[in-house]
Amino acid sequence: MAPGDQSSLFPMDPGPGAFDLPALWLERTGPERDVVVSSRMRLARNVDGFHFKPKLDPGEGQRLETYLHTVLGEIDPALRYHALHELPEHHREVMFERHLVSREHVSDEQPRAVAFDRTGTTSVMVNEEDHLRIQVFSPGLDLDELQGRVRELDARIASRVAYCFDERFGYITACPTNTGTGLRVSVMLHLPALAFRPEVRGARGGERDIVRMHNAAQQLGLTVRGLFGESSRAEGDFFQISNQVTLGRTAEQTVHDVHELVQLVLDWERRSRETHLKTNRHRLEDHVWRAWALLGHARRMSSGEALAHLSALRLGVCLGIIDRVDVGTLQGLMVTMRPGHLQHLAGRELTPEERDVVRAARIRDALSST
Amino acid sequence: MAPGDQSSLFPMDPGPGAFDLPALWLERTGPERDVVVSSRMRLARNVDGFHFKPKLDPGEGQRLETYLHTVLGEIDPALRYHALHELPEHHREVMFERHLVSREHVSDEQPRAVAFDRTGTTSVMVNEEDHLRIQVFSPGLDLDELQGRVRELDARIASRVAYCFDERFGYITACPTNTGTGLRVSVMLHLPALAFRPEVRGARGGERDIVRMHNAAQQLGLTVRGLFGESSRAEGDFFQISNQVTLGRTAEQTVHDVHELVQLVLDWERRSRETHLKTNRHRLEDHVWRAWALLGHARRMSSGEALAHLSALRLGVCLGIIDRVDVGTLQGLMVTMRPGHLQHLAGRELTPEERDVVRAARIRDALSST
Repeated sequence: MAPGDQSSLFPMDPGPGAFDLPALWLERTGPERDVVVSSRMRLARNVDGFHFKPKLDPGEGQRLETYLHTVLGEIDPALRYHALHELPEHHREVMFERHLVSREHVSDEQPRAVAFDRTGTTSVMVNEEDHLRIQVFSPGLDLDELQGRVRELDARIASRVAYCFDERFGYITACPTNTGTGLRVSVMLHLPALAFRPEVRGARGGERDIVRMHNAAQQLGLTVRGLFGESSRAEGDFFQISNQVTLGRTAEQTVHDVHELVQLVLDWERRSRETHLKTNRHRLEDHVWRAWALLGHARRMSSGEALAHLSALRLGVCLGIIDRVDVGTLQGLMVTMRPGHLQHLAGRELTPEERDVVRAARIRDALSST
Repeated sequence: MAPGDQSSLFPMDPGPGAFDLPALWLERTGPERDVVVSSRMRLARNVDGFHFKPKLDPGEGQRLETYLHTVLGEIDPALRYHALHELPEHHREVMFERHLVSREHVSDEQPRAVAFDRTGTTSVMVNEEDHLRIQVFSPGLDLDELQGRVRELDARIASRVAYCFDERFGYITACPTNTGTGLRVSVMLHLPALAFRPEVRGARGGERDIVRMHNAAQQLGLTVRGLFGESSRAEGDFFQISNQVTLGRTAEQTVHDVHELVQLVLDWERRSRETHLKTNRHRLEDHVWRAWALLGHARRMSSGEALAHLSALRLGVCLGIIDRVDVGTLQGLMVTMRPGHLQHLAGRELTPEERDVVRAARIRDALSST
């Protein structure tokens, strides 16, 4: 099976109202895969002649949505357009879990949409906080590739749409924190060694290293958050580094700053892994094998527990402690074990208890077939 | 390999000062194996013409020990005699873990000994709290067999030794709580369903059932203790039912009382298991499979954690949730994963950290070969 092929993940008929899911690109890995999960670039753009989102009434919102539907369809026929307000909740949830739409976009009341291609690595949100949010994704660390791709798409849209642009400030956005380049560069890192907590795993602590990373980020005008936006302790030891400043710095400078911090943290994490291997080998191996054991045998599992074990196993695979599974499979499971995907697969809503049982079964299947 | 064959358990040369370990009879199972682990009968006897233990000076203690060495050797050549004060600590520890000697007997200062046969189901302690403590064991619930065996051995010793006996009180013992029959009947039960704790496993609680068992025991002059003597919460959900009264009741009455309570508790436990299977099937299966997973994959494990998982797995095997291992193997592991056995196998003292690593390896081996 080719990586990213979705057939193995959704073997059942997802039922009426189904939409074609894009490929699960997180099942592929990219440069610096031992530490970097994925990279993302996002541009915030607004269309001249329409009110900004906070002042947009439903009629005008609908007109904007219809207009952008036409434009996006003409620019790139590969972009499939979905009016979110016409989709059942669990379809929107699946799109959120694939990072195609934001949490706010899922639950908004306004006419709104998303367009994405079959690769799942390009998406355009319509009527999110800004009229347009153009996003591109890539597994691993690949900011040059992303920059080329997002620029090209931006230019194609700009050839058809008049953006709100000010010579002095740059792109004007609904929230001033995005004004300027409108660019957010984010890199998702897996930092289990830096975050290794002594009270949990009996090793020398890593809180100090996490603080050091936050300080370094601040100095560069960057920010570090957990997988779900939490700022201190990150779920599953996944941290996202991204820029905060969009005004007064060029896109190139922003990409450069993020890249610099990522390289620094990459280096810290790798050294820390080596140290743990030398000084805590038994504990580390135990931690990894227990994760493998529980993922492969549990009969019910919460998403939080699953994420923690997938994190431990990812570390174990990267360190060569275990070779029965590959990093891409684990990254894919991080997405497909989430509630929206489980319900999409079942074709109906599931209670939390049902989800825990279905999740455990799904993970067991995925790992036993590897 | 025949059950009870020790070769698989001690494949390495245990080094100088080694003694022949008896068979690991707990690897066999007996009647009511789903709930009853083992049965034991013990007689306390003292030799006329010698001071009781508290008044025994080392010289007299040595004379008594030498006398009983001769007597026991003549009564049954199959009984191998070991002067405990001449053995290294980890040998004594292994004997304790096999129930051949008591905790007090391991660490006493007096000249003292134990004689046991190759089956490991008969042992005679010399100079424990009483001059003689005659013990017989059996897997499962088999009190008739035990009673026949302990009576025969008692009679053979009595044919050579004058016991301290009073027409009115019966056998006189160092502590008055044993005076009369000198008999203690103990049955080890595995009660995971009755003890199922809601705060741990989210099921309806079993503390009530445990209290009910304690009350029933009290009414019959019996007592319920955990595996290591604790009275409320039992390690690994193993509980020991035994008589307290030795005065004013015949041996037959005592055996009958213990048997009656055991049958009652057996019935409660079985009904409780059925109820859990019906109402908590997913949680129960999860509990069992996680135990199997961790025992089969962990790289370090404390004895407390191992016991908890062996308990869960024993329940799972008895309920047919898992069939990859048999109850006897699990019962054997409960003994061989303990510190004395691990050190005996290694031929040296191990640090607690080393023991956890060796224990995990030993358990993995035992379960992967089943």
